[in-house]
Amino acid sequence: MTHHVVVVGAGFGGLAATHGLAGSDIKLTIIDQRNHHLFQPLLYQVGTATLSTSEIAWPIRHLVRKRKEVTTLLGAVTGIDMQNRSVLLEDGGTVSYDTLVLATGARHAYFGHDEWEPYAPGLKTLEDATLIRRRILLSFERAERETDASRRDALLTFVIVGGGPTGVELAGAIAELAHHNLPDEYRHIDTRRARVVLIEAGPRILPSFTDDLSAYAHAALERLGVEIHLGSPVSNCSAEGVIYGDRVLAAKVILWAAGVRASSAAAWAGLPADNAGRARVEPDLTAPGHPEIFVIGDTATINAWNGKPVPGIAPAAKQQGIHVARVIKARLNGDTAPRPFRYQHSGNLATIGKRAAVIDFGTVKVRGWLAWWVWGLAHIYFLIGVRNRLAVALSWLWIYVSGSRNACLITQGEPASKAR
Amino acid sequence: MTHHVVVVGAGFGGLAATHGLAGSDIKLTIIDQRNHHLFQPLLYQVGTATLSTSEIAWPIRHLVRKRKEVTTLLGAVTGIDMQNRSVLLEDGGTVSYDTLVLATGARHAYFGHDEWEPYAPGLKTLEDATLIRRRILLSFERAERETDASRRDALLTFVIVGGGPTGVELAGAIAELAHHNLPDEYRHIDTRRARVVLIEAGPRILPSFTDDLSAYAHAALERLGVEIHLGSPVSNCSAEGVIYGDRVLAAKVILWAAGVRASSAAAWAGLPADNAGRARVEPDLTAPGHPEIFVIGDTATINAWNGKPVPGIAPAAKQQGIHVARVIKARLNGDTAPRPFRYQHSGNLATIGKRAAVIDFGTVKVRGWLAWWVWGLAHIYFLIGVRNRLAVALSWLWIYVSGSRNACLITQGEPASKAR
Repeated sequence: MTHHVVVVGAGFGGLAATHGLAGSDIKLTIIDQRNHHLFQPLLYQVGTATLSTSEIAWPIRHLVRKRKEVTTLLGAVTGIDMQNRSVLLEDGGTVSYDTLVLATGARHAYFGHDEWEPYAPGLKTLEDATLIRRRILLSFERAERETDASRRDALLTFVIVGGGPTGVELAGAIAELAHHNLPDEYRHIDTRRARVVLIEAGPRILPSFTDDLSAYAHAALERLGVEIHLGSPVSNCSAEGVIYGDRVLAAKVILWAAGVRASSAAAWAGLPADNAGRARVEPDLTAPGHPEIFVIGDTATINAWNGKPVPGIAPAAKQQGIHVARVIKARLNGDTAPRPFRYQHSGNLATIGKRAAVIDFGTVKVRGWLAWWVWGLAHIYFLIGVRNRLAVALSWLWIYVSGSRNACLITQGEPASKAR
Repeated sequence: MTHHVVVVGAGFGGLAATHGLAGSDIKLTIIDQRNHHLFQPLLYQVGTATLSTSEIAWPIRHLVRKRKEVTTLLGAVTGIDMQNRSVLLEDGGTVSYDTLVLATGARHAYFGHDEWEPYAPGLKTLEDATLIRRRILLSFERAERETDASRRDALLTFVIVGGGPTGVELAGAIAELAHHNLPDEYRHIDTRRARVVLIEAGPRILPSFTDDLSAYAHAALERLGVEIHLGSPVSNCSAEGVIYGDRVLAAKVILWAAGVRASSAAAWAGLPADNAGRARVEPDLTAPGHPEIFVIGDTATINAWNGKPVPGIAPAAKQQGIHVARVIKARLNGDTAPRPFRYQHSGNLATIGKRAAVIDFGTVKVRGWLAWWVWGLAHIYFLIGVRNRLAVALSWLWIYVSGSRNACLITQGEPASKAR
């Protein structure tokens, strides 16, 4: 029987493992509950009407169509029968494995306040992004027709909770949308007066960057017109707005960029996990006591970055996927020597609006317009396929030159008027 | 007081009227229940995963951003108070007018069988198109995992009801998707064996074309692998499939392209209407007894094409919008001479898959690859803005050369597994 590798999740980690196993004498099955791989680092640009959905997503089965040994299944996993080495699917189906790679990622988390989610959506899927785009654009539309001044102010107040890269990128993009792209289009409101408020519980934004890059980003965001509130944990989110510190802020659009929680993979496999639900894995990324199960990416936690935890970013998931493929190939060749994973950090990147970014390569630090170009080129480079690189480059160039955003579409959900 | 023109509906007719009134000393308000103008002639390409949503839609307020006298409102109209010359909105708001242009288009219609809609969606909005794309792609996904042969056959049977241009274009595009683009991507099913069945109640497809173009299109569709059933009115649509003539066909995807019904505009204004709900208008496109109200496009019916009814196509709506703008401008100048609308027919176009189309310019008839190129260039020409022309041209070129469709995204609605 050919060795069967089952990869659950076609994110950066799962795809890297799949690519790494090309040419091996195995069968491989990819299971994902969506039919597309998503380039999450640019998801905030779909949420803020810069890019369209198809520019950052690829049908999984198309990506592996030339690998005849690879089968793609659309399905939701609900558990693992470790005794029988079988993955359980929501529709009652099962898929048996010889080796299992769990790469199911993370969702945003509300620190025990899941009741905030309807009022403060996070950004992890294409549906999240179109929902956020819809809320932002509808809020301007409603403000245009609102006659009550305080209700109008609430409609024109956009709150982003969480000062990490996603929060910073969302805040910068919304500020540009409101202050630069939309003013011409409205008659009764001045979108330049919209407030974009970034709330961070800690003492500074971008805590994974150095102090000076963090301070630069802070100043660059303020130049874009973003209000930043530090040291202010949010204590409530509702349809009326947010409460943070001892302040109440009326706001109709709240976006959540404050925390993540791993998928349920650790629970399926009954593995020890940390507070965020991430499985604690062995040095070679296998589940404790189960060398046939690997857990990688945002679903796992491991101190493999010079003794520190590996960060939850795309390059880390990719490196883990590549590592897992190497271990599996070595085993197929009868080599079972221990192969601990070591994370190589290539840098932290975050962009702040149209012409500023911060990059920390460790020894080299770049900020401003040069960092912005490096950021843009790096992201185009890491997109999959020539076609999407062209499409994204065209979209960016267009917005850069003309200032007009083509992706300002309100779709999905109830008709506009019913959402009021 | 500046004369206030209210245009309800930002389709081809409403936008043409708005553009035609540029430079006049008026105020103008556009009301639409969506925030975007949609290029409906290419909507079937979104439904069949060729184009993405943002490539054929434009935010309305962006299109008129430079016209400071134009206000755009997102809102659903529920009625007209003709006494007080006021448009009533669903949220209780009102907008008063001096002149009203009703250009609210049409929806698909089920000839008194609205209960078929859940099983046989039609194609009029971006949401319709993403729903159809979702159903088509999910059906292949489900077939890939289906072990029962007859259920698998039903999942791989795609029925299109209605042999007009939309039905022909959908059938051709689905046949190409199944027979040319997808085969590489599946392991358990042969998508080339998918059945694409076009059912037409009348004696031939494309009845608005000449007999020989219709016969050519018939043969071209069959070459693509489409089964065509003529003279077969559909008598039932359900979750199991369709019944047409005396035949029962098990099919999990049914698409409706058989009929349209005008929006409720005639009812709002209490106007006489035909069977399809289209308002019967005066020769100058005004409502009988109400010279201050114009009704145009798919919402109206008028025998202004050498005594025949004006067809429900984009160029007709545009010509009517331009005509209305001329009448309004003349009136503002004190010229109230009667100005009957006359429709100039420039031709009928329909495309059949990747390299064939039929065009009837009246005296000149073109078919085959040349017609396909004319069709493609004409549609790119009529798209709004350089950016979308570039984007659509890039998408088409890419598919033409590589055969890979980037827009194969399943989004919206319940997670994949719940749809089973």
